[in-house]
Amino acid sequence: MFNSEGPIFMESSRDPNDCTIGIFGVPYDGTTSFRPGTRFGPAAIREVSTGLETYCPKLKLDLKDINFADLGSLDVPIGEPKKVLQAITFATEKIIKNHLKPLMLGGEHSITCGAIQALVKFYPDLILVQLDAHADLRDEWQGTKFSHACAMRRCLEVLPSKQLIQVGIRSGTQEEFEEMDVHCRLLSNSNQGLAASLADALRPYKEKPIYLTIDLDWFDPSVMPGTGTPEPGGFMWHDFSSLLDVIRQYNLIGADIVELSPQLDPSSCSSILAAKVTRSLIMLLSL
Amino acid sequence: MFNSEGPIFMESSRDPNDCTIGIFGVPYDGTTSFRPGTRFGPAAIREVSTGLETYCPKLKLDLKDINFADLGSLDVPIGEPKKVLQAITFATEKIIKNHLKPLMLGGEHSITCGAIQALVKFYPDLILVQLDAHADLRDEWQGTKFSHACAMRRCLEVLPSKQLIQVGIRSGTQEEFEEMDVHCRLLSNSNQGLAASLADALRPYKEKPIYLTIDLDWFDPSVMPGTGTPEPGGFMWHDFSSLLDVIRQYNLIGADIVELSPQLDPSSCSSILAAKVTRSLIMLLSL
Amino acid sequence: MFNSEGPIFMESSRDPNDCTIGIFGVPYDGTTSFRPGTRFGPAAIREVSTGLETYCPKLKLDLKDINFADLGSLDVPIGEPKKVLQAITFATEKIIKNHLKPLMLGGEHSITCGAIQALVKFYPDLILVQLDAHADLRDEWQGTKFSHACAMRRCLEVLPSKQLIQVGIRSGTQEEFEEMDVHCRLLSNSNQGLAASLADALRPYKEKPIYLTIDLDWFDPSVMPGTGTPEPGGFMWHDFSSLLDVIRQYNLIGADIVELSPQLDPSSCSSILAAKVTRSLIMLLSL
Amino acid sequence: MFNSEGPIFMESSRDPNDCTIGIFGVPYDGTTSFRPGTRFGPAAIREVSTGLETYCPKLKLDLKDINFADLGSLDVPIGEPKKVLQAITFATEKIIKNHLKPLMLGGEHSITCGAIQALVKFYPDLILVQLDAHADLRDEWQGTKFSHACAMRRCLEVLPSKQLIQVGIRSGTQEEFEEMDVHCRLLSNSNQGLAASLADALRPYKEKPIYLTIDLDWFDPSVMPGTGTPEPGGFMWHDFSSLLDVIRQYNLIGADIVELSPQLDPSSCSSILAAKVTRSLIMLLSL
Amino acid sequence: MFNSEGPIFMESSRDPNDCTIGIFGVPYDGTTSFRPGTRFGPAAIREVSTGLETYCPKLKLDLKDINFADLGSLDVPIGEPKKVLQAITFATEKIIKNHLKPLMLGGEHSITCGAIQALVKFYPDLILVQLDAHADLRDEWQGTKFSHACAMRRCLEVLPSKQLIQVGIRSGTQEEFEEMDVHCRLLSNSNQGLAASLADALRPYKEKPIYLTIDLDWFDPSVMPGTGTPEPGGFMWHDFSSLLDVIRQYNLIGADIVELSPQLDPSSCSSILAAKVTRSLIMLLSL
Amino acid sequence: MFNSEGPIFMESSRDPNDCTIGIFGVPYDGTTSFRPGTRFGPAAIREVSTGLETYCPKLKLDLKDINFADLGSLDVPIGEPKKVLQAITFATEKIIKNHLKPLMLGGEHSITCGAIQALVKFYPDLILVQLDAHADLRDEWQGTKFSHACAMRRCLEVLPSKQLIQVGIRSGTQEEFEEMDVHCRLLSNSNQGLAASLADALRPYKEKPIYLTIDLDWFDPSVMPGTGTPEPGGFMWHDFSSLLDVIRQYNLIGADIVELSPQLDPSSCSSILAAKVTRSLIMLLSL
Repeated sequence: MFNSEGPIFMESSRDPNDCTIGIFGVPYDGTTSFRPGTRFGPAAIREVSTGLETYCPKLKLDLKDINFADLGSLDVPIGEPKKVLQAITFATEKIIKNHLKPLMLGGEHSITCGAIQALVKFYPDLILVQLDAHADLRDEWQGTKFSHACAMRRCLEVLPSKQLIQVGIRSGTQEEFEEMDVHCRLLSNSNQGLAASLADALRPYKEKPIYLTIDLDWFDPSVMPGTGTPEPGGFMWHDFSSLLDVIRQYNLIGADIVELSPQLDPSSCSSILAAKVTRSLIMLLSL
Repeated sequence: MFNSEGPIFMESSRDPNDCTIGIFGVPYDGTTSFRPGTRFGPAAIREVSTGLETYCPKLKLDLKDINFADLGSLDVPIGEPKKVLQAITFATEKIIKNHLKPLMLGGEHSITCGAIQALVKFYPDLILVQLDAHADLRDEWQGTKFSHACAMRRCLEVLPSKQLIQVGIRSGTQEEFEEMDVHCRLLSNSNQGLAASLADALRPYKEKPIYLTIDLDWFDPSVMPGTGTPEPGGFMWHDFSSLLDVIRQYNLIGADIVELSPQLDPSSCSSILAAKVTRSLIMLLSL
Repeated sequence: MFNSEGPIFMESSRDPNDCTIGIFGVPYDGTTSFRPGTRFGPAAIREVSTGLETYCPKLKLDLKDINFADLGSLDVPIGEPKKVLQAITFATEKIIKNHLKPLMLGGEHSITCGAIQALVKFYPDLILVQLDAHADLRDEWQGTKFSHACAMRRCLEVLPSKQLIQVGIRSGTQEEFEEMDVHCRLLSNSNQGLAASLADALRPYKEKPIYLTIDLDWFDPSVMPGTGTPEPGGFMWHDFSSLLDVIRQYNLIGADIVELSPQLDPSSCSSILAAKVTRSLIMLLSL
Repeated sequence: MFNSEGPIFMESSRDPNDCTIGIFGVPYDGTTSFRPGTRFGPAAIREVSTGLETYCPKLKLDLKDINFADLGSLDVPIGEPKKVLQAITFATEKIIKNHLKPLMLGGEHSITCGAIQALVKFYPDLILVQLDAHADLRDEWQGTKFSHACAMRRCLEVLPSKQLIQVGIRSGTQEEFEEMDVHCRLLSNSNQGLAASLADALRPYKEKPIYLTIDLDWFDPSVMPGTGTPEPGGFMWHDFSSLLDVIRQYNLIGADIVELSPQLDPSSCSSILAAKVTRSLIMLLSL
Repeated sequence: MFNSEGPIFMESSRDPNDCTIGIFGVPYDGTTSFRPGTRFGPAAIREVSTGLETYCPKLKLDLKDINFADLGSLDVPIGEPKKVLQAITFATEKIIKNHLKPLMLGGEHSITCGAIQALVKFYPDLILVQLDAHADLRDEWQGTKFSHACAMRRCLEVLPSKQLIQVGIRSGTQEEFEEMDVHCRLLSNSNQGLAASLADALRPYKEKPIYLTIDLDWFDPSVMPGTGTPEPGGFMWHDFSSLLDVIRQYNLIGADIVELSPQLDPSSCSSILAAKVTRSLIMLLSL
Repeated sequence: MFNSEGPIFMESSRDPNDCTIGIFGVPYDGTTSFRPGTRFGPAAIREVSTGLETYCPKLKLDLKDINFADLGSLDVPIGEPKKVLQAITFATEKIIKNHLKPLMLGGEHSITCGAIQALVKFYPDLILVQLDAHADLRDEWQGTKFSHACAMRRCLEVLPSKQLIQVGIRSGTQEEFEEMDVHCRLLSNSNQGLAASLADALRPYKEKPIYLTIDLDWFDPSVMPGTGTPEPGGFMWHDFSSLLDVIRQYNLIGADIVELSPQLDPSSCSSILAAKVTRSLIMLLSL
């Protein structure tokens, strides 16, 4: 199911036995209409990961002390969105059955729904936390429901809890903002700060399974130029870092990192940021 | 049907009336698995076209003396190959009914079949001439029949004459080469030269309608680096130029230029070559 | 007068009738000595604009509710600075006479003076607000008075009010800083913040016509690498956003956005920032 | 007059005394309308020159045995074409008076006329040999007579002999080709080959002073992608090499190499080719 | 000893006489295993320096009032780390003997130790201040003690005072962080701010000679993408600017700027930042 | 010994058992002084190899019918040339003892000597055939004998037969050309063609073991821009193809492909050419 011919995330095992976290890539950008390239995301994250240290001075954890496997990447049929989602669901199920927490590297944001469809079978009360620049709540975009612009709309359809927390969205249609407003779903960068807002929003879900989907365009284009639809006015690393302190107190059962388009950033700083986000998530998932 | 917001090919009219040639773009690369980017082809050809002269010293013709229209580009639903082909067929039909010879700018090679499906309704005895590095005769590739690696297989299925002349193919599977051999379809760069071979091959079709599909990777990567699957050992401009002398003696009723991936070539020389090929085809179609 | 063959700003009309804002491009970098390329600015802003949403959650306005036209770009004779300025003045006059507020997309900063020369005929008490990294107050630079390093000096010469507010300048000669000091023209990033400083500076001009010229190098190079003379230590999007709240309370009658050099930034984030600035200005001009 | 702060051509002296050849750069692209960048040509040629050997196995000459000086580059006022030409004429005169043969590194092709104006004062019977893709015989282009598209028209105006030999031109207007035809000025790549054609054309001028102007777009875009207006169907290194054998038999008294736009070619192969052309010309000028 | 064929830092003299500061480059990246390219750093800093103003509005100093020399770059034998360090030590000694304060432009961080070895002969009580993302305290890395990952370990070995102040380190092994902790060497971005922490740390050394080594990856990747091992979560220009106010009160007797890899940043903003850092250090060294 | 974490050459086995050819990479550019980057060569060749067909229509062979293994890449200590060569010799010996013919992917040309040192232990009468632009016969370069400019000099020292055939060298010092002349070692592109010359030169060695070292800069820069020291006037694919017909008649017992610097060629055409050369050599080694 997984193609393991490419590079591997630093310090990963290839063998899932005795591991608690399973990384896998989904090199898919089949609905991206503006600028393609997220298909190269999983390989890029793995390639640059060797330039990072295994130790995180903030979390005071070391990858060397964590058992996690890099399972490789899914072979996906470009141009067949339905089959791609099915393959993701199937792979995620298998990972969960192997007692691994899934950590998916995209690829475009539409892949999240494939993972959610598998997860809700095991965690029917799943809470979804989204870091993103865009609301992604459109029902259809450019003639297809599979578009990455509809990613959260599709997730909501399959999420029994209907609990979606949207962190720091700064772009969308008027209708999307109204919907987020009505459902009090949007956490903005208010006076108290994003981390405090997230702490408030997560407080009712202390025992609940949490899934975190990170669209990397949540970050400011200055630190994440390598993404297809960058939106000025985003967040810096210290913002992300402060959110980690909140999330680590909850029951994170899976995560994904999407929308890295490495070829748009010749300095590779975007890929390196994505790799550091990945390292952080491995650590949170290990707690 | 056509989106005319982008740039326009030099000296083109936007108005098809009184014109005999209709250029249109198909910015589609939905099945390209290796390196996407041909979706940017039509815009790139038009943008650089202004750097060319309107006069061709070889053909001794001037674009200013030719009535041709640039109709714009089709809006295509990325990720829906069947709908894309239908849209192309529909557009080509409309162009032919408007008494224009179609000149399609791709996009990936799978789009040719959409045009052929329209053309054979008007020209049931159509002869197809293919300039290409690759045979493109696979029945299926990476799980889909719509793949650009199957472009000529799909065309043969809808071409009543079954007459496909494959010029200078230099890459394929053993089976593809055997098939080309059996049907004597492949024109190689033999001692007599490619132009003489083409003259021989076309001789029986003096009165027949000819459609020319040019996959730009037919050219050597040194002059056409901007394509997704470059193959060493290709052809130079003077080879193409010598073929023009042959084709101009036949009844060319349509053509396409595909597989330009402009972002792979920062010098833009690939796009400029494609624009000069386009200029040449406009001239041949005007005869 | 305007060349409309290139791309168009999203949601723009081409027809100025019933519009209140007229966008036009000036693809000119004829005096840029260090690194040319702002000639590609207007096309780049328009091309990437389609990736933005029409709705602005901050201003709570939607481009769809605003009548504005993209008139195209001026054809400018590279190498003839005087003629270029005359063409800009002529075009701006025509735009004002058509009851449109001009929104000029550069091009280098020297073009601002061309617009000012037209505007002061209609608004003799015009106040000029400049966002810029550089003072641009030199009388001459590298042997010519037309240089973009002299942009504000030239504007001051034709501005009857002599009221120039220079926001956030962080680079210049000792003489330039002394002059700004003497005339209290420079708003720095003081303790109270730039927005409050601007509010103070604009308070006397509640009824006056305001023209805003934005040299994009005012932004920090991290968010605007695509400019010819980036200067470390600049401003972020939220700084710009806070200024919008001040300016919207005044009578903005025109604006320009200059010094985008898109080819210096392969990620296109600079162009996208410039397009979002453009979207913001369209909204302010519509009030 | 010359700015010597930049890099230096390999093995050059800075001191013109005891030298017979004077290299100088003209970093000017002030009339280039399509894609600027030849202003970076002189620096690029010098930078990459250190990667070449000093010995030429074809000419069996070594730079170490030749006394030549790299005088630096002219400071040119971008935007003032007339002053630029005057500065070139003045500099060339001074070089000739210092008993040096001038070897000018451009910059755009319009600079040739500045050198010719100086040379004809010393060599009234000067013969001009042009290697170029384009005829450059327009009288005016985009509103200015100074354009690089008019380079040879301007030279003809100041050349008393009116003897211009145009080698391998493959692009121009119908009028330009007719003019070249009428005056039998154009040497094409005929059956006998370009070198034999040049030998025939030069035969009457055995004792005459020859000036060679090389627009690098004469080369095929495959070997010279780094130029503003590449034209498919050009010449390879061995074609150039064969011309050297002809020219070395004549009285070459000066030369220039123009239209290198190094930033268009990230591989630097274009700059390296230009440096090897420069090395060849130094050797021919030393004979 | 110094090669002066390349470009020169703006406003520098080539002649060290009457100067008090001596700039020199070390184009060396011989141990860089991840991504090479810092060998191009010295040339890049000099090239872009001409785009800066000579006046600094923060320090209220002008380069024109300072006597400093750019001595050129060392010729270093790539592949011979020991010889490279010896050459640096020899050159630094000579500079100090010429009554110049050394300002070294790297190159990779391993070169610092070469300078320190010379400096401690003259300043045995030297205090070393390091701005860096990485601790650089490894004893060995990838089989060599010369690696840039061991830069500070090597410096500590030759530094009699053992006084190393590490400012803002955010990446390292667990052991490195423990060592910095034990020796209270690390200044973090605490509540009081980095500048105040540095002021506290330097207070005991009012009369001591201070050497400042700036690994440019101390800056955030958003402002310094052009470095081999960028680390998210770094510092901005205003952070650096606030440190200047502290350092200027001390006896700075030398400095270096290392790890610029200009080719990773096509916008050149990284090189421009490095040049502005260089300008700042020249000013501090002139006090 | 081999690091197998990176990508793998298409259709390769990882397991050397039952194989007859052993591919390995040497990502080393430690003496490259002009432009580094060949360290990225082995990974680039493998990555793009998946875009090629397994069938070669010229040789009429299919990789699927050949048993060959890709063993991974050597971990090399950058900055320690002697240790690097020892590691290569050790690895090559082990490969030969495993009954595999070695096929080494560089890296810079200095690595060839490491392989030769192993090979001559098994094949004391080894004949060395070099395709290269440069003679590589210097005894020392920039202060080190390990330089890639000395590659063939080092090989000659350890080659008992002293039989080196240098094919198509076009750059070197006068001394190098004299030496090649004296020893009749150089095969030029004479009237009879390079293939016929090689056939003549190899004729005496029908039974001898042949080792082929291919410095990719032998190819023309137009088809191989991605190399550190490109030299105009090189060879095209059909030249290489004609040599294959000669070499296949001899006893090829090993080969290497060196000096690919993939980052210099953003189109990846250079890497694709190198991969096709690799495919050809696998086929020749299988005969």
